[in-house]
Amino acid sequence: MDSSHDIKGGSIGNLVPENHPRRESLLVRERLTELMQEGSVVPQGLIAHGRGECFDYLLGEKTNDFAMKSIDVSAALLLMSSHPVISVNGNMAALTPRELVQLSKETNAPLEVNLFYRNNEREIKIERILKEAGAEEVLGVGEDASATIPELFSERRRVSPRGILVADTVFLAMEDGDRTEALVKMGKKVIAVDLNPLSRTAMKASVTIVDNVIRTIPLLLKRVQEMKSKRKDELLHMINSFDNRENLREALQFMSRRLNQLALSL
Amino acid sequence: MDSSHDIKGGSIGNLVPENHPRRESLLVRERLTELMQEGSVVPQGLIAHGRGECFDYLLGEKTNDFAMKSIDVSAALLLMSSHPVISVNGNMAALTPRELVQLSKETNAPLEVNLFYRNNEREIKIERILKEAGAEEVLGVGEDASATIPELFSERRRVSPRGILVADTVFLAMEDGDRTEALVKMGKKVIAVDLNPLSRTAMKASVTIVDNVIRTIPLLLKRVQEMKSKRKDELLHMINSFDNRENLREALQFMSRRLNQLALSL
Repeated sequence: MDSSHDIKGGSIGNLVPENHPRRESLLVRERLTELMQEGSVVPQGLIAHGRGECFDYLLGEKTNDFAMKSIDVSAALLLMSSHPVISVNGNMAALTPRELVQLSKETNAPLEVNLFYRNNEREIKIERILKEAGAEEVLGVGEDASATIPELFSERRRVSPRGILVADTVFLAMEDGDRTEALVKMGKKVIAVDLNPLSRTAMKASVTIVDNVIRTIPLLLKRVQEMKSKRKDELLHMINSFDNRENLREALQFMSRRLNQLALSL
Repeated sequence: MDSSHDIKGGSIGNLVPENHPRRESLLVRERLTELMQEGSVVPQGLIAHGRGECFDYLLGEKTNDFAMKSIDVSAALLLMSSHPVISVNGNMAALTPRELVQLSKETNAPLEVNLFYRNNEREIKIERILKEAGAEEVLGVGEDASATIPELFSERRRVSPRGILVADTVFLAMEDGDRTEALVKMGKKVIAVDLNPLSRTAMKASVTIVDNVIRTIPLLLKRVQEMKSKRKDELLHMINSFDNRENLREALQFMSRRLNQLALSL
């Protein structure tokens, strides 16, 4: 996967032995730490990443069947949407910039910077990361975030009038629960990547992918490419027969069984 | 609890509504972020805190029976030790400085700064936090960390010859697995506070308290005070009848049951 290439580019890449069992995880941490020092990731993003690591451990650090099912439905939904938008925060830009750009191109979904802790300097840094990864245009930066969405306060409600405001489907990851809820109340479909099946975002989204964004985005990209040849009624059937609540229950029960197995193997 | 007083002293204390359901958790995050900017907490400490938050959620954010049992055994062990030492890292100093100082006084256990990312500036900052919280002496700062423990590399093996080097029992929290293992191999008893029952520290320690250090330290302090009147043979019996592996298994099974209950309640 190309994401590993981004991550191995970090300055400690050559200090962690190639065969270290936690190499990938250590490199991801280091990449986030570097981007926090550089300013595109916020300290709260590091804490959120730590929470994610714990849930990922409970998932066995792999994309399980329930996540694969959500990824398929998400691919169908992106292909069936008129105005899909990919909402990008600091952690997403840090972890999978190239795959986000490719996903944007494959689905005709613009990339929009959408930050919980919004400030112009961070917006520009994230725009730069995405452009270096091949993006031609990035919405939601500076004056472009001139529209507002209801029921949110201050800087958190600013969005692009060409992006999230008019989107029928918003793809996001590691998002704040209030914002996810506000988007759903506006009648939008929300696809959320969230390692925590109990987060408000996971519970409120239309389709929740309980998986690590590093694994999800390349898989979603691949499924979008493969499913382009499918008939519309097939895609619609996939979307309509999906039960997000049931999918979250499967994720929780998987984690519960895994903890119990780990307990018995002690 | 006094720890909340430290935490509410953070600069956003008055920005988070008193009745916010996640108030305590938000204030703790803010305190760690502030101390990272100030230099006593490292970025990796924020990621570690995030992991802890997830496990704490699985514990129901309370001190469960198995943790209370470990706290009692830890109190007994501290009271029966000839040279107990309290090893302090950046996160511990940030979260419960006053209680650590009180515990040190009640158990005649010196406080020793012991950092995974050791540098003199951070040592001095943590020493200052502990002295402001009432500590008279803090070991392991600068030239005092002149002894080394076997099987560890570089700065990570430096300890105080008056502290950890000669200790029979080391109390620590959120510690690196290699270091915990090295201390156990030197024949020391290790008491570890760790929210992750599967961490190498949790598995290698003599007594593991699977709980949040913010709740544990005040409870441990109280139990030390209460148990001072107990006979030595009673304390010894408590220590000898404790099975750490079994206790970790109980913690994992508790988390597993809780996840399953949450799944069924969706």
